[in-house]
Amino acid sequence: MKPFQAPLEDILFTLNDVAGAGELPDYDADLTAEIAGHFASFAEAEIAPLDEPGDRKGCRLEGGRVLMPDGFDKLFRAFAEQGWQGLTAPEAYGGQGLDATLLAVTSEIFTGANHALQMVTGLVPGAIRTLLAHGTEAQRAAHIPRLASGGMLATMCLTEPGAGSDLSRIRCRAEPAGDGWQLTGEKIFISGGDQNLSERILHLVLARTSDDGIRGLSLFLCPCTRRDGRRNGVSVTRIEEKMGLHASPTCQLAFDGAEAELIGDEGQGLRAMFTMMNHARADVALQGVAHAARATDIARHYAAERVQGRGPDGAPVALEAHADVRRMLDRMDALALGGRALAHLAVVAMERGDAEDLVEALTPIAKVHCTEAGIEAANLGVQVLGGYGYLAEYRIEQTYRDARITAIYEGANGIHARALVTRLMPGRSGDALERFLEAEAGEAVEGVTAWKAARRDLLGRSGPTPAAHDFMALTAEVLLQCLWQRMLSASERHPDPERIRRVGASAVATGRERILFHAAMVRLAA
Amino acid sequence: MKPFQAPLEDILFTLNDVAGAGELPDYDADLTAEIAGHFASFAEAEIAPLDEPGDRKGCRLEGGRVLMPDGFDKLFRAFAEQGWQGLTAPEAYGGQGLDATLLAVTSEIFTGANHALQMVTGLVPGAIRTLLAHGTEAQRAAHIPRLASGGMLATMCLTEPGAGSDLSRIRCRAEPAGDGWQLTGEKIFISGGDQNLSERILHLVLARTSDDGIRGLSLFLCPCTRRDGRRNGVSVTRIEEKMGLHASPTCQLAFDGAEAELIGDEGQGLRAMFTMMNHARADVALQGVAHAARATDIARHYAAERVQGRGPDGAPVALEAHADVRRMLDRMDALALGGRALAHLAVVAMERGDAEDLVEALTPIAKVHCTEAGIEAANLGVQVLGGYGYLAEYRIEQTYRDARITAIYEGANGIHARALVTRLMPGRSGDALERFLEAEAGEAVEGVTAWKAARRDLLGRSGPTPAAHDFMALTAEVLLQCLWQRMLSASERHPDPERIRRVGASAVATGRERILFHAAMVRLAA
Repeated sequence: MKPFQAPLEDILFTLNDVAGAGELPDYDADLTAEIAGHFASFAEAEIAPLDEPGDRKGCRLEGGRVLMPDGFDKLFRAFAEQGWQGLTAPEAYGGQGLDATLLAVTSEIFTGANHALQMVTGLVPGAIRTLLAHGTEAQRAAHIPRLASGGMLATMCLTEPGAGSDLSRIRCRAEPAGDGWQLTGEKIFISGGDQNLSERILHLVLARTSDDGIRGLSLFLCPCTRRDGRRNGVSVTRIEEKMGLHASPTCQLAFDGAEAELIGDEGQGLRAMFTMMNHARADVALQGVAHAARATDIARHYAAERVQGRGPDGAPVALEAHADVRRMLDRMDALALGGRALAHLAVVAMERGDAEDLVEALTPIAKVHCTEAGIEAANLGVQVLGGYGYLAEYRIEQTYRDARITAIYEGANGIHARALVTRLMPGRSGDALERFLEAEAGEAVEGVTAWKAARRDLLGRSGPTPAAHDFMALTAEVLLQCLWQRMLSASERHPDPERIRRVGASAVATGRERILFHAAMVRLAA
Repeated sequence: MKPFQAPLEDILFTLNDVAGAGELPDYDADLTAEIAGHFASFAEAEIAPLDEPGDRKGCRLEGGRVLMPDGFDKLFRAFAEQGWQGLTAPEAYGGQGLDATLLAVTSEIFTGANHALQMVTGLVPGAIRTLLAHGTEAQRAAHIPRLASGGMLATMCLTEPGAGSDLSRIRCRAEPAGDGWQLTGEKIFISGGDQNLSERILHLVLARTSDDGIRGLSLFLCPCTRRDGRRNGVSVTRIEEKMGLHASPTCQLAFDGAEAELIGDEGQGLRAMFTMMNHARADVALQGVAHAARATDIARHYAAERVQGRGPDGAPVALEAHADVRRMLDRMDALALGGRALAHLAVVAMERGDAEDLVEALTPIAKVHCTEAGIEAANLGVQVLGGYGYLAEYRIEQTYRDARITAIYEGANGIHARALVTRLMPGRSGDALERFLEAEAGEAVEGVTAWKAARRDLLGRSGPTPAAHDFMALTAEVLLQCLWQRMLSASERHPDPERIRRVGASAVATGRERILFHAAMVRLAA
């Protein structure tokens, strides 16, 4: 088994030399590299070794409480004590006050090392952001210090039985009680809905204050402990048995008159939730990148060591010498590099704060493309390893299983594709993306022209269309053409410029064919 | 969870009305339908219910012997007693004497119901065929009756540590001993290498009688019991922990001077083995089809029942009403229908016995296309179910895991693609395939022209090429265009002609785009 190695050089390359993090006022490239290096060492030495045992052992529900796999509690304490949990929390609330680009670096590395644990801890930065954007000062002061220190973890409680992608069907009710609210209802698919890592848990719950569809939804803070110190009325009724992410407890939660506080305005639940969800979506894009990179690393290492067949001179050669294996490895590498560039582009734009319309489009595109990239790379990685890829021993089968959820959660990819076509493209986000692509076009001009034609074509139709899927793929491919231009121009600043050029040349050439294909599929679905 | 339902109508449609089984001298459509119906009932009532518990519990190695999950032994006895195990064995040896088209029907249904158990029992028909083609009368008489009755199961022992796709590296040695041979060495990835279903096991072992590369390889019959009645020198040294197929024991076997008989001529091991492998490859193609069909059935059922979102009139609608879900369901259906037509075409051609060159090409193309179809359909099926697709409860995640091995075993798909380009296309198989496509072309003439150009292009190059993958995909897509023409022409003979026409129209139109894409990728990889 290939031990986890953080792809630090690749990460810093796209962040600094492709996505332009240097333009951000608070960004410090040296500091980022230094902190990223520290986190990489911690992830390689401490976090990654628990990935396999966590997958094997999974979580257990005992006496109504979730027990994480052995060692996860100790690991989380070390992680929190070193300040990683409060990385982006303001210093005034006990955090490190660092910016979200650094979080993009550590999140990706964390997922590559141990996706399950990253899931359980990874909603905290979004919860902090939600508190900062929508909470009162009292709410911030009550919760952010605990979230930053690791004394409290957070969950995001949206989904209910019968209300997955369709939030208008949410039935969990909030009723006024004293100076606060009481929540009653059931939530499902709650990652980290309970665990034995942190003393407390803060549930961010979307609940209904009136029957007025999505306008009847508000967001609530529901800590596991009541103000009087007793346990709140939130209980775990089951944990799901899943294909992967066995060490991430996916809980069904029952709220039984649980004490809660409104955060943000009544009836503005979706707005408040989207702050958290937008952060979570960028994070999921990075999870996809992490799986693509991890799969590539495992497969490249295996293909370099494993002798298979003979070369033209009859001498035994490594697996990597075979044309089809090289094709798969380069494709995997391109998926990781390109996906990361796209995710970093979205994160930097989000932090710049001056391109909200563009960010609205880039975030779901990155979410969809990067998660599919992770799944495709994991699939290719299994294939490179052959029979060994199917065995638990080489760990790539875990990547294959763990990666699969990313195309489903934080908005199933098909929902994002539909929203791109029906909501974003006809509006300012579509225009912003078009301006961005026109400015970037360069050698990718043909792809941009095809994209603009497809956009026009779709705008002329009404309602959801089966073309949404291919339009989403087309959009991502056109963005990737632009990003590969940036990467190729900057290749000398990567420690291995030859690799960037080789993988990039192939990604650009094959990407052109994918653009033609998806553009044709969009036309077909008319 | 959707109980397994055998896709009987679809199966009989492609067999009778598309692949032309009726042209076979011994084929009886009514008898096939009747026997297929009996098997479908048995599979639905008896075989399928053990699929989930088998996956959960897996096999165990205890005291050097493999224990199958509870109930598998009883199920296998019922299966054998009803005569299914001896379906294609000649009546003279106690079998039913039925033809291989019927086996294609029962194999697919068996896999859809329980891939793991199908694996353990499914090598017997190939072993019988090998004995009939290469064995002496004494060998046939000694083994076929036991294989046909279920008293003996068979294994295929090729792979060794360090010798997967590259058989020239096989080190297992055979040495003359008395009037027979002794085998010494190690084999890995042996499906059903041990089990507690049958009293006996017949290992078909590829071993080395000289150091002369693949010309030093011979095939041996190595029963688990010696002629003197004692246990033979074959032991299970471990069983693998795998992503899926948990109820199929994948064994590492040690041969320690095991008593064995040569089958076929010394040094002709590969030739004898290929009889078994060709059968196994067609069987694996059907496994891919089975997974595609099972995934489609689960997803279609879920999408029809699950309410999600609202229609144009604001009323709640089923998931299947959404454009992107319909796109996924139709694609899955097309993968199952098209893959099955291709597999049936190969099986019927194999049985006809007058088109060996064509069969040489069709078999690996069906293997590669159908296994990738199964994996793609399972992936789409998981997506249709969303979060529920990731849960063990709905069983499609098992399809996703079980299907994945099919692209790897019986020759990794990349190896078949390479062989197609380097060995088959320059020779008579390439010519036979070209003649077949020209005769079929009809409306698919553009695709056939693109394929011929790609073939010419590849013939001008030497050695393996990264284009092999796309040439394989291109070839399958062109064949599918021809098969969809046949299906569309015959649609009125299907119980649901409208479905065949809808899915077919979309498969043809999107297939044309895939042809253009793969043809362009072949040119690029030049």
